[in-house]
Amino acid sequence: MDWVTVVVLLALLQYIVFAVLVGRARGRYAVKAPAVTGNETFERYFRVQQNTLELLVVFVPATWFYGQYVSPTWAAILGAIYLVGRTVYLRAYVADPAQRSAGFGLSVLPITVMVFGTLIAAGWKLLR
Amino acid sequence: MDWVTVVVLLALLQYIVFAVLVGRARGRYAVKAPAVTGNETFERYFRVQQNTLELLVVFVPATWFYGQYVSPTWAAILGAIYLVGRTVYLRAYVADPAQRSAGFGLSVLPITVMVFGTLIAAGWKLLR
Amino acid sequence: MDWVTVVVLLALLQYIVFAVLVGRARGRYAVKAPAVTGNETFERYFRVQQNTLELLVVFVPATWFYGQYVSPTWAAILGAIYLVGRTVYLRAYVADPAQRSAGFGLSVLPITVMVFGTLIAAGWKLLR
Repeated sequence: MDWVTVVVLLALLQYIVFAVLVGRARGRYAVKAPAVTGNETFERYFRVQQNTLELLVVFVPATWFYGQYVSPTWAAILGAIYLVGRTVYLRAYVADPAQRSAGFGLSVLPITVMVFGTLIAAGWKLLR
Repeated sequence: MDWVTVVVLLALLQYIVFAVLVGRARGRYAVKAPAVTGNETFERYFRVQQNTLELLVVFVPATWFYGQYVSPTWAAILGAIYLVGRTVYLRAYVADPAQRSAGFGLSVLPITVMVFGTLIAAGWKLLR
Repeated sequence: MDWVTVVVLLALLQYIVFAVLVGRARGRYAVKAPAVTGNETFERYFRVQQNTLELLVVFVPATWFYGQYVSPTWAAILGAIYLVGRTVYLRAYVADPAQRSAGFGLSVLPITVMVFGTLIAAGWKLLR
């Protein structure tokens, strides 16, 4: 057990919290299942969760691979930046979707660095 | 190879079945791609698959971590509860979306237990 | 580090590219967040990314398990077929959603083979 695992688990927990916020918004703004539109605020929470799902599916294996093949310390640091980025994204998106870029970039950047970083390390080892 | 792997694979297989049901509903109720709305029954099958996707992205790493760091036996048991919960959820949601809570809870609970359980185990080992 | 890891990383990278295409289409066709409908071309790119997300969540663990328990060489080959299938799917879907079947089948088939293949291998080892 190491900090990489802890960061990945915290990302899973953060996503669960985002999903709970969607459920709460569904009740509060009376958006009945299976509808996922009809109230702007609900849609914002829903899109934050969906966007986090879209990143999480890459974040989990990317962090694990990067920690395994490049650097566990940097995997934990980049993972922590992702966590902060997602929190900024949630707050900005719910307040005003047009302001979502900063938080989006802050959470996409570490994922991209880890995917490319591991690919370069892999290519290096396989080709030399 | 162990029961944890088998349970995770069965969850992947169950999700594939849910996706096939969406494809069948798309044909049966004539919802043409890229539309994902327009027929209530199609939307129910679609939301069941989407909701399962939303959980699966957490379920797979959570079960793997919990099996690795806490208990493989309990990971397999909790994973099996998730599988049952998802089946209940599918049946209830398609019949009446308002009845989806029991199956939802039954599949969310084991995931939450495994995320928190592994985090507590991780915190314990890192901090003592 | 092996070819299985490289193929999984390339699948993550391909998915990031698909997400970038959605972001570009959002700007080009002026679909303002949180909306995900309103322009047919945007919706096609969006559905390609969503469909790839729906497969990726199964592809990553399936490839990993298959490479671990059945054959790393075949995992890499089947993973490469998935990558080609997704590229065909993108091109076909954006040109005409009705033509998406071939690319869809080409990317779903290797995933299904790997899930069933690992399950059969697992069942064999556990039951004999």
